[in-house]
Amino acid sequence: VADRWQDLDTPVPLVDVSRLERNLAEMAGLAAAHGVGQRPHTKTHKTREIARRQVELGAHGITVAKVGEAEAMVAAGFDDILIAYPIVGRRKYERLLPLLDRARIRFAVDSVAAAAAASEFFAGHGRVVEALLEHDGGAGRSGVQSADEAVTLARAVDRLPGLTVAGVMSYANAYKTDDAAEQAEIGRTEGVAAVAVADAIRTAGLPADAVSVGSTPTARHVVTVPGVTELRAGVYAFHDLKQVSLGVVGLDRCALTVLATVVSHPRPERFVLDAGIKALAGEDYGWGTHGVVLERPDLRITSATEEHGIVTLPPDAEDPRWSIGDVVRIVPDHACGCVNMHDALLAVDGDDVVDTWPVIGRGRVR
Amino acid sequence: VADRWQDLDTPVPLVDVSRLERNLAEMAGLAAAHGVGQRPHTKTHKTREIARRQVELGAHGITVAKVGEAEAMVAAGFDDILIAYPIVGRRKYERLLPLLDRARIRFAVDSVAAAAAASEFFAGHGRVVEALLEHDGGAGRSGVQSADEAVTLARAVDRLPGLTVAGVMSYANAYKTDDAAEQAEIGRTEGVAAVAVADAIRTAGLPADAVSVGSTPTARHVVTVPGVTELRAGVYAFHDLKQVSLGVVGLDRCALTVLATVVSHPRPERFVLDAGIKALAGEDYGWGTHGVVLERPDLRITSATEEHGIVTLPPDAEDPRWSIGDVVRIVPDHACGCVNMHDALLAVDGDDVVDTWPVIGRGRVR
Repeated sequence: VADRWQDLDTPVPLVDVSRLERNLAEMAGLAAAHGVGQRPHTKTHKTREIARRQVELGAHGITVAKVGEAEAMVAAGFDDILIAYPIVGRRKYERLLPLLDRARIRFAVDSVAAAAAASEFFAGHGRVVEALLEHDGGAGRSGVQSADEAVTLARAVDRLPGLTVAGVMSYANAYKTDDAAEQAEIGRTEGVAAVAVADAIRTAGLPADAVSVGSTPTARHVVTVPGVTELRAGVYAFHDLKQVSLGVVGLDRCALTVLATVVSHPRPERFVLDAGIKALAGEDYGWGTHGVVLERPDLRITSATEEHGIVTLPPDAEDPRWSIGDVVRIVPDHACGCVNMHDALLAVDGDDVVDTWPVIGRGRVR
Repeated sequence: VADRWQDLDTPVPLVDVSRLERNLAEMAGLAAAHGVGQRPHTKTHKTREIARRQVELGAHGITVAKVGEAEAMVAAGFDDILIAYPIVGRRKYERLLPLLDRARIRFAVDSVAAAAAASEFFAGHGRVVEALLEHDGGAGRSGVQSADEAVTLARAVDRLPGLTVAGVMSYANAYKTDDAAEQAEIGRTEGVAAVAVADAIRTAGLPADAVSVGSTPTARHVVTVPGVTELRAGVYAFHDLKQVSLGVVGLDRCALTVLATVVSHPRPERFVLDAGIKALAGEDYGWGTHGVVLERPDLRITSATEEHGIVTLPPDAEDPRWSIGDVVRIVPDHACGCVNMHDALLAVDGDDVVDTWPVIGRGRVR
């Protein structure tokens, strides 16, 4: 590793440790102030080092999306992991079995069919696994659609020998609006609904201890809902253009950038950077761009292909006068997708590269 | 590896070897029929096995996009590699140095500044490296903008001790239209312009042996242009929804799919597959979707997040009656981006998994 980030081979993802620490401390403080536990979704950074810091700051566990990510995090020493995803299929159950000896592993269930299959497997191996019943908090993905459905599912799970109901989880999609009042409403609605689902299950005489909710844009709203026990927000570690576009934070809070080199300047208004989709990720949610130049937020990736990030100067923009070989830092649209493209993140303090953090959850699609 | 693809853990990328072989043979035949050499862009598959087959079928070399991909391919035994990208930066030159002892390595140059820096380094190490002068063939990325600029650059490179002009390369973007006549015009225009650039360089008394052009949608047009020496098309190995949407091939020619499991069915019209952006790639160019169901092309991923591929049934669609745990195959929008998300491809012949091909070029962003 070079001593200064300015000397690194590019493209390479950098994490500003000061910004990271501020982001981590702020969310930990928010959760603590409301007496809500924190179980950060580690899909954002996929590293042992940042997950450890999140636990040091008070998180009682971590969240992952895949069995493969759970395998990586158990190997890294974490012992309380929620796989916030409906786990289906014998091969995944087989992989969970050895993890159960080393950690508390919970996963999401949203159908009797999936619960029955998991129960049959785990009961056959003499195990009882904790399931969180997933309620669709508004994202329109997986999850039961009502409290009634949740109670029916909870009763079914409760009768199954290999599973036990540990609570409720949900997820809302606050990315569909940049209106602060609407985001607040989305967050509160998710939290209130998840608590109501848990209450309905308890009223039916079944346990539902955990009420696990939230995301970065809804965090400050959902923690105010009485009955919420656990906040899963993850992107906050780095923030990104999506969060900026939602008004959650300013660009000065974005801790993850991709260092890129100016490799071509074929026309006065066109610069080509060596960070395209393969370095920044393919998503383009927030600002209608794959990335914004950290030092010049008026300049953005105006189009990207796999290896080319094109910056076309707006007609009224001051010419950055970049030379071939100059390096610039790009704030990606979606931090999680960006991290997944890389094998390691470089931790940077000022000009200095201070550490290398392997992306141990990278590409663990299964 | 399971014996049958139906039994694999998901999501997992599958390559239909019959379709692959047909795709490879067809493009090799097209190039041969027109007396044009073939240097397939291996970014699509990033595997040793498919690159070998392309060479067996007559390719005189291979193309990569990055020094890291060149490192992987040299290690895999390939000895004639074009890095079709402007290579800038001392750290990249340092990595190229050991490769020059083992293979013929060419790379693109489109500026005097980049040429001078490369020349200084390589001349200092007693080497002369072959450069292809890049001409912007219409893609609007890197590359000089005219034959005059190319001649000026060629003269500058010719005077530099560490580089020699080996020819011209260009790339056109045929993805902006699905009109066959327009695609043909884009391909012919690219080829004619590249040949004209090479002719202008030769008229100036300098060498320009290689005229390296083309892409999958323009291949059959650009090979008809006299003077073209080399076809770099790459996606043809697998094809994908982009090629289908352009009318290049039908869905029955797509050799790459991602096997996915139905993990949730929360509403009558909504199925959730475990293949989202992390398995299919973030791009969404072609059909306005991240993927289409191979067996049911009327069904597509209607929205995708990192781990969720949502299939919402159109109102008039026949219900596929998928059960939780069923597996389906998804044809991705962009084969190259999809492959880059995975560590290995599984080769499938009928129902049988016949081989595992490591994606040796995966994630080599530098």
